[in-house]
Amino acid sequence: MKAMEEKILKDGVVLPGNILKVGTFLNQQIDIAFMTEVGKEVARLFAGQNVTKVMTIEASGIPFATLIAQAMGVDEVIVKKHASANVSGDVYSAEIYSYTHGNSYTAVVSKEYLKETDCVLLADDFLACGNALKGMMKMVEEAKAQLVGCVAAIEKGFQGGGDELRAKGIHVESLAIVEKMEDDGSILFR
Amino acid sequence: MKAMEEKILKDGVVLPGNILKVGTFLNQQIDIAFMTEVGKEVARLFAGQNVTKVMTIEASGIPFATLIAQAMGVDEVIVKKHASANVSGDVYSAEIYSYTHGNSYTAVVSKEYLKETDCVLLADDFLACGNALKGMMKMVEEAKAQLVGCVAAIEKGFQGGGDELRAKGIHVESLAIVEKMEDDGSILFR
Repeated sequence: MKAMEEKILKDGVVLPGNILKVGTFLNQQIDIAFMTEVGKEVARLFAGQNVTKVMTIEASGIPFATLIAQAMGVDEVIVKKHASANVSGDVYSAEIYSYTHGNSYTAVVSKEYLKETDCVLLADDFLACGNALKGMMKMVEEAKAQLVGCVAAIEKGFQGGGDELRAKGIHVESLAIVEKMEDDGSILFR
Repeated sequence: MKAMEEKILKDGVVLPGNILKVGTFLNQQIDIAFMTEVGKEVARLFAGQNVTKVMTIEASGIPFATLIAQAMGVDEVIVKKHASANVSGDVYSAEIYSYTHGNSYTAVVSKEYLKETDCVLLADDFLACGNALKGMMKMVEEAKAQLVGCVAAIEKGFQGGGDELRAKGIHVESLAIVEKMEDDGSILFR
């Protein structure tokens, strides 16, 4: 999506350690008008595939997933990073290593929100190594639901997670794929 | 909002410990069509008050805040529960005690997302003791921004946080105020 690449070039900041900060529009401050258009674009990319749920993991991908679900006219499911008193009963769970935070956590989702009849689109703000997506895929598989595909607002192509999933035949869309980032701030797209 | 009360009566589950589980539509699985209408209702409640930002704290209030911001045509700001590599530079911070999780955390938001010129509406899925809102109010005050008011999807009236804020002259709206919940599942609205 040309508009996503332009937005990254305009507002993104490259920080040491391969961090691309896009907090001004994607995941800390949300440019709602722009992200509403992004949601519509994702709906176009997965049109006709009978998606019944858009699933994400808390927290930074939630606005992105919310606006995709809205554009698709379906409900959103949010995987929790930790069990709490609000997540009761049977759950699907997955151990996920977070690249951003440098730790592992046990993500959970109530079984009542993921059914065998669901066709699920997984969404996240970033796709780097793909650990969060792989954790959610395990949940979809355990639920015997159908995985329609994965979408990321921004993929860090050089970290390989997206290509690994594509090689397995999974339909992965990213609105921008960053191939290279330099400490001088330059960004090269695939 | 009559529709919110009806939704709670239809889909809400009372759990021991004064927990009202509304994960089927509000904060785990999101009924996007319903919550889009809720966002429009909140925009009506705060119409003409020149809101420039809708601010929430991660994670469960994010879909609610996203859809309010969309209905208002303004951007959303998400306060992070913990500092990370993605939150760089100067931040406003506040110590917040979480009733749901039984612990305290230091919430942060980059100063670049909260300006002196901003008129801020604070939004969260639940208003119980009001700790999250009070933490965000401290941030708004430190930024010398203007607080327009607070909105919760569901207020637990019996925990007093909403009334405490109203007594201070703050404009607080809740789409449903639960006055009493019984372990037999009955729910009484104010």
